[in-house]
Formats: sequence, structure tokens, C-alpha cells
Amino acid sequence: MNKTILVLFKLNEEQKSFLEAAAPGCKFLYTRNEEVTEQQLNSASVIIGNPAPDKLKMADNLELLQLISAGVGEYAREGVLPEKAVLANATGAYGLAISEYMLGVLLELYKNLHLYRDNQAECKWTYRGQVKSVYNSTALIVGLGDIGGEFAKKLKALGAYTIGIKRTDSSKPDYLDELYVMDKLEELLPRADIVALSLPETKLTKNIINKSTLKLMKRDAVLINVGRGSAVDSEALCDALENGLILGAALDVTEPEPLPEDHRLWKMKNVIITPHVSGGFSLEETKSRIIKIAAYNLRALMEGKALKNVVDRARGY
Amino acid sequence: MNKTILVLFKLNEEQKSFLEAAAPGCKFLYTRNEEVTEQQLNSASVIIGNPAPDKLKMADNLELLQLISAGVGEYAREGVLPEKAVLANATGAYGLAISEYMLGVLLELYKNLHLYRDNQAECKWTYRGQVKSVYNSTALIVGLGDIGGEFAKKLKALGAYTIGIKRTDSSKPDYLDELYVMDKLEELLPRADIVALSLPETKLTKNIINKSTLKLMKRDAVLINVGRGSAVDSEALCDALENGLILGAALDVTEPEPLPEDHRLWKMKNVIITPHVSGGFSLEETKSRIIKIAAYNLRALMEGKALKNVVDRARGY
Repeated sequence: MNKTILVLFKLNEEQKSFLEAAAPGCKFLYTRNEEVTEQQLNSASVIIGNPAPDKLKMADNLELLQLISAGVGEYAREGVLPEKAVLANATGAYGLAISEYMLGVLLELYKNLHLYRDNQAECKWTYRGQVKSVYNSTALIVGLGDIGGEFAKKLKALGAYTIGIKRTDSSKPDYLDELYVMDKLEELLPRADIVALSLPETKLTKNIINKSTLKLMKRDAVLINVGRGSAVDSEALCDALENGLILGAALDVTEPEPLPEDHRLWKMKNVIITPHVSGGFSLEETKSRIIKIAAYNLRALMEGKALKNVVDRARGY
Repeated sequence: MNKTILVLFKLNEEQKSFLEAAAPGCKFLYTRNEEVTEQQLNSASVIIGNPAPDKLKMADNLELLQLISAGVGEYAREGVLPEKAVLANATGAYGLAISEYMLGVLLELYKNLHLYRDNQAECKWTYRGQVKSVYNSTALIVGLGDIGGEFAKKLKALGAYTIGIKRTDSSKPDYLDELYVMDKLEELLPRADIVALSLPETKLTKNIINKSTLKLMKRDAVLINVGRGSAVDSEALCDALENGLILGAALDVTEPEPLPEDHRLWKMKNVIITPHVSGGFSLEETKSRIIKIAAYNLRALMEGKALKNVVDRARGY
């Protein structure tokens, strides 16, 4: 089993030991994307990390690319990975961090905390009006991977009514009050106080929130987008906010991204923008969960067992 | 039962009908604090609202003062109310609104949302550093009335370890991992990532967070104060923040209040200030809960049954 495992992901000694215990006898190489050599790529049976996609041509011996992201982007495209290599992502690692972020921005909008922060910059002790509650609200969670599911659980625990939309039909978990597939979106939007998107980037999810779907939303609805910015038509969103079609939006991802300094979205009332930070390694626990997924898949590969988080490259997730 | 019920609290027609159904045959007078007359006060068997305390001398026939606040302040002082009158507060009405607010400001601090709001004012797409999670954190909830209890339940549902401090000994509810009385505060502070105060104003709670207790807190702890500003020594808090003794604070109440424009607290890093808005009638549901308490007590009084939310005037809550 003298395989080479190439790790493009900064680990401390404890984390290295944990990973190495999953593949005894293998050779572990630790480096960074910027410094990885052709020879290292060529020797690797497993790569853990997100190397530049165009460099993967050199990875002739690759059996497994274990991404450290949930999104797969370029890696799923034909010809990027050697035919026989398996592609796995880090779905499951990000649910905690991103669902807590989502709850945070939801409450920020609902309790006017963004407006009180603006007041604070001017040392102003001034009331900013009525608030809303998560309790008794109706939430529409679009995309029910790890992130959407974790968010739905939290909302349910806080007393919200939860409606989920999934890409494929499956049985309804307890934390959802109702579950549908994607073609019911337009029918469900008028019922939702909270519309939360956590979708991968695919042809089917591009601009799913656009001029016509925004018109279907409640006037006091709020939109939350994590995942990919392309799920929302930014210009249509700005128009909707200017015309009072919806109450507000919280966006960790935007289209374009980074959002240019002169984009009108920055200055919209009741918009909260964060620079694609809800996931990543902003939370130490996220990193620890990624390492657990990588170790699980390393061990499974060594033992010839089924891997988890395997990406269907045709579907793109 | 031809008693007079004086309501100093703005209600709509539906709310009036609901209240009146609790005391059939009684005479309901609706007015405002600013317009209430001596004659009205004198005729009232029940007052629902928070009239100016010095006017209560005129209320010779008063049997029940049903406050619409959770705090009782002046009303508990000797001589303010006629001896035979019962004082009841609106504890239970504010738990939802304030506990959701507390979760909001906690996540705002934990996810750097206040810093991203500052970025947004300058249209800046810039990372603001590592975040923290409620999951696996340890929270010390000081004061376990309706508000503290509701907040503890929410934290528990999000995966926090919850330690409660109560004024009097009682059995531990499921949503707390540990429960103590007040004299254990100093022993418990070093364990807490989150210290949340929701305390009434009494002699025992004044400056409970001060120079010496701040020193006991973790360097990455956050302090949340709702209830009364006097629970925290503002100057000591500023010093602690400047010296990095704690990570941050979220304050809906301050001492003094309103916080003067030139107070140094406004500009402290990692402080979130809101102008005593977490309760009040900012949330429609709060008002509805107050009316339910008032109706319950009206009915109980008419039927000679036990009232709820009765304040022990000697203790002040």
C-alpha cells in the first residue's frame, strides 16, 4: 500500500497524525497549491485539497481527489480529472458554520441590528422601529444539503414553520413541516417570510431568484443567499428592494464576486453583504470536520470500501 | 361586580373585546398616561398599564395594578401603592422578543457581522477574521426568569452547554446542564464563553459585572446585558475591552441611559449597543402576550382566584 498522498491544505501536527493514521504505510507529502511540483502531482494516488484544475492533467496516477470545499465547480468538467479518478467533496463540513451564519444574518435583519449598527457609528440612541420574530414565521429552504438541512433544524427549534425544496424526491425529515421538489418553487414563494438559498452552481439553479420570482414573494419577506451568487439576479434584486417588493436580503455570495465598489447593491436599504465568508475555514470546527471526511475516505480507499461525498460529475454535485 | 377597569395602554378593538370578556359587567375606561384624570384614578379598582407612580396616591380604590412591563422599579417602593392593592408585572410577555434579540446580538458578535456592516458602509469586500460558534460553547445565564430561561432553551437547541444562575434554589430544568445560586457567580465566570445577564434592578444586582468580576472572565468571552444597565459597571467594562480582558459585549441597556453621545462605550471595538429596544412593543407578539396576562389576572380577580405574576414588593420582583 505504498501510495503517495498529497495534502494541499495547512494542517498542524495533531491533524497530520490523525490523517496519517487512516492510511498506514502511505507516503504523505504536505505542500501548498503555490508550491506543488509536477513530480508531486504525478506521483499522487490521492490529493486532498483544491489544486488548480489545469494542473490535474499531470496527475496520471490519481485515484481520488478529495476536495476541501462543498462546491465542485471546474473539477466536475469533463477532461479535468483522469477518467478513473473519483471526485469527492467536503459536504457536511460546512453545515454548522454556514447555518449559524444564516441565523445570524436573519436575526440581524429581523431585529434591525444592521440599522442599530449604523446608529452606533454616529453615537445615536434612536429607535429604529418594529421587529419581526423567527417564532411563528414560515421559512422556505431551497436546497437541502448539509447546510440547508442544518439551517432548517435551527429554525424549527426556534418555532418557525419549515418548508423544504429539494432537487430530488425523498422522504420528509422531522425538522421539515413540508417537503417538495424544485418545480414547486413558484407556488411556495408567496407563503414564505424567509427564503433561504443554499444551492450548488448548476444550470438549473442559475438566477432561480429573478424579476418574475421576486414578484411572487411577500412584501415583508427576506432573502438569504449562501452557496453561489449566481442563484440570484443581482439587478432584479436591487430593483425589487428599491420598489419595496421584499423587505430585505442577506447575501454572503453575489454575482459578480467580489462585488465591485461601485455596485448599487452595497447601498440598498435592508441589504446585508458579507464577502463569501460564511464557510471557508473561518470556523476551526469546519476544518476539523473536513479532516474527518478526508480521513474517512482515505481509510475507505485503502480498505476497498465505499467512499462518501462522491460527486456525480454529470450532475455537478 | 360593577368595578372600574382603567386601561393605560393602546389597544385595538379586537384586543379590547378580548380584555372585556375577562370581566363581564365591569366598566372599562381607555385613556393614556398623559390624559388620565384624578377622578378616573380614584374610581379604578384595576389599572392596567404603567401610570406615573406619584399619581397612584389618588387611586384609593385600587385592588390591582397590572403593569405592562417586566421590571417593577418605583412601583414596589413603600407608600407608592395603596397597602391593600396587589402589584403584578408582565413577566412572560417579553421572553420571546428578548431571547431572539439576545441570540441575534450574540451571533452578530460571533460571526463578525458588526464588522462586516462597518465594511459595507465603505463598500469594502474584505475578510474580517476567524469566527466562533454557539455550538460547543459554554454559556452562563445569570437570571432565569422568562427571558433568561427562553435564551437558555435556544442556546441548548443550538448545541451550547448551558449553566444557569438563579436567585433562589430550585430544581434544574432540562435545558440547563447545571444550575446554581448567585453566590457561585465568581466561581463560574472563568468557565463561560458567553455571559448573559437578564436581571431585575435590585440592590443585589447592581454592578454585578465590575472590575473584579471582569477579570475572572475568559479572554474570548462575550457579555450580553438586557434587563437593567446598572448590572454592569460601564467604565470597568470599557477598561476591560480596551485591555483585551474580554472579547466583546452586546448591550441593550446601559448605565447611564440613554447613553450620552460622547460616552466612550459607543466607540469601543466589539461592542454592540442598541437603545433599550429588545423588549417593549417592538414585537407585536409581545403586546398580545401582555394582554393575555392582564386578561388572566382580571378574570382571576373577578372570580376570587389566585393571580399570577404577583410581585413581592419587599424583594422587588
